[in-house]
Amino acid sequence: MAGVCRLGLLLAGAFGFASSAGYSYDTYYFTTKVDHFGYANNDTFKMRYLVADQYWDHDGGPIFFYTGNEGNIEVFANNTGLMWDWAPEFKALLIFAEHRYYGKSMPYGKESFEGPSRHGYLTVEQALADYADLLTHFKAHVPGAGDSKVVSFGGSYGGMLAAWFRLKYPHVTTAALAASAPILQFTGITPCNALNDVVTKAFAKESDQCTSAIRASFEVMRNQAATEEGAKALEEQFRLCQPLAPSNYTVLRDWFVDVYTNLAMVNYPYANQFLGPVPGHPVKEACKYLEKNFTDDQSLLDGIYQAISVFQNYTGQTHCNDPADSAGTLDAGGWDIQVLHTAFLVPRWDRCQSN
Amino acid sequence: MAGVCRLGLLLAGAFGFASSAGYSYDTYYFTTKVDHFGYANNDTFKMRYLVADQYWDHDGGPIFFYTGNEGNIEVFANNTGLMWDWAPEFKALLIFAEHRYYGKSMPYGKESFEGPSRHGYLTVEQALADYADLLTHFKAHVPGAGDSKVVSFGGSYGGMLAAWFRLKYPHVTTAALAASAPILQFTGITPCNALNDVVTKAFAKESDQCTSAIRASFEVMRNQAATEEGAKALEEQFRLCQPLAPSNYTVLRDWFVDVYTNLAMVNYPYANQFLGPVPGHPVKEACKYLEKNFTDDQSLLDGIYQAISVFQNYTGQTHCNDPADSAGTLDAGGWDIQVLHTAFLVPRWDRCQSN
Repeated sequence: MAGVCRLGLLLAGAFGFASSAGYSYDTYYFTTKVDHFGYANNDTFKMRYLVADQYWDHDGGPIFFYTGNEGNIEVFANNTGLMWDWAPEFKALLIFAEHRYYGKSMPYGKESFEGPSRHGYLTVEQALADYADLLTHFKAHVPGAGDSKVVSFGGSYGGMLAAWFRLKYPHVTTAALAASAPILQFTGITPCNALNDVVTKAFAKESDQCTSAIRASFEVMRNQAATEEGAKALEEQFRLCQPLAPSNYTVLRDWFVDVYTNLAMVNYPYANQFLGPVPGHPVKEACKYLEKNFTDDQSLLDGIYQAISVFQNYTGQTHCNDPADSAGTLDAGGWDIQVLHTAFLVPRWDRCQSN
Repeated sequence: MAGVCRLGLLLAGAFGFASSAGYSYDTYYFTTKVDHFGYANNDTFKMRYLVADQYWDHDGGPIFFYTGNEGNIEVFANNTGLMWDWAPEFKALLIFAEHRYYGKSMPYGKESFEGPSRHGYLTVEQALADYADLLTHFKAHVPGAGDSKVVSFGGSYGGMLAAWFRLKYPHVTTAALAASAPILQFTGITPCNALNDVVTKAFAKESDQCTSAIRASFEVMRNQAATEEGAKALEEQFRLCQPLAPSNYTVLRDWFVDVYTNLAMVNYPYANQFLGPVPGHPVKEACKYLEKNFTDDQSLLDGIYQAISVFQNYTGQTHCNDPADSAGTLDAGGWDIQVLHTAFLVPRWDRCQSN
């Protein structure tokens, strides 16, 4: 692959890699500013990006640019099959750029989350500026890329970024493909419980029995968690990594919501590892354990445990369940901070009227 | 003016004012963030803005929004007659927003320029975000403004801002009128001496004799300034506020370039006070003193002194000339810092091939 070698010479530090999904790309790091919009802070950091040029027409072929979202960029590269499927047809160069404060793109290394003076640069605006800076540099220095049209791609929050990138940097990117991107999911624009409604529908599509069982289980768990003894039983029932007490029942409840939401998000017809290993049609698989007439609370909770294990423990390798970490393999430690400091509408069980 | 009262009730701190140009507006202050793109710094400051609603159709009339540039916003309000001329016809609300770090909109008061930690937020991106923040707040809180279309206006750097505002905040402003805006005046896009060429043409349009005299004067001054004695004579000749020595001749030279540039910039057919009081057709007035066959250096320098006095001392009130301050009445102390930290192409006599 002459192109890869050419890139390798230009951009030191490439590591060739064929992923578990069978995709082949090289890894690079680009030095950019921590703050793109002022000069009170002139720190820089290295952001990671992946390049696959085996399909690229070096004489003007387009650049498909993935605007990385909240996680290790390799996960998105390996789960965005569309870009790999289309690359040969369009003779496109693929770039997957990692979002600052995720994966290996930490502005302040291990101290990146130590206080607002460090994580205060974890914003959408700064991330978009990273991508614009990277692309501008890339097009200026990689032979053949100067005149290439750029199409930004992204899924979920990454899709929001892809669309916003086109809006805010129209001179850098020509088009955007925003997949499953809740661009309008902000307070005052979209009802608070819109996401929960969609998640519920994904399960209701399997059967009313499934959603009824889930609904009933929340009531059972809430009652049971009211006592120390009951909370302890739930802790064991769901093999939690941390102790459960009546005072932190909401952590358990919110984690269940996250797990059901994750099941709905990865409800693809094929087995995948996007948020963790799951079978094809995972919602259907989960509901199989709930489509019964439960005669007592214990058998209901047993069914619930089996249902969530479709997401939590499909391979049988999970030793305990950690309600504090529902992001699966995404490595999305920065997400909670980002949500806190932006207007993202992340539905919360306790904030929205839910069904 | 019911509208003004209504605004006054909503937005405390308005001061009615009829300017020397006869324009009537009220003054307000809006609290916004020093850093709009992160939260490492959560400081806020008050930005000044002027509002004239005497022409406004409160039921959907448009908002004409001046994106303030490098100076006291009142100067721009009083010298942007177009907005005042058009306001009655379009039944428009006029807003003139002051650029951060100019006039009374100082993020850190008198310490605003004390080091990068203070003036590091003097950037185009932050200023545009101020305007977006102000308009968003204004439209949300002023009755009748919610559905008003916004047209951004600006001249010179303010025109660049008006255009960029439309590009970067298309959801906030519907159109932009960028007047005399050197949007493409960046290195690599526009020749370095493009501005100087235009300035020269403004004088050449009067007569070749005028430009020849100016050209000759630079040679005369350079030779004369080479000695302490000659520099002292120039200091007295041009009534400089500070001592002139051979070592700082370039300050004098650059100041002359600025004065000629200012004359060209305010070369309106009518008397105006935009950068300071000048007569109508000021370049023509200046050239009148130079369209002679000078027989010796002294008479040439006398003519030059009279020519620059058309800009520097039209009213006879100037006691001495300060080459360190060529911005006239704009109060543009932050401009040098801004130029230093952006890619603005400000032609320099010593950097560009000039004519």
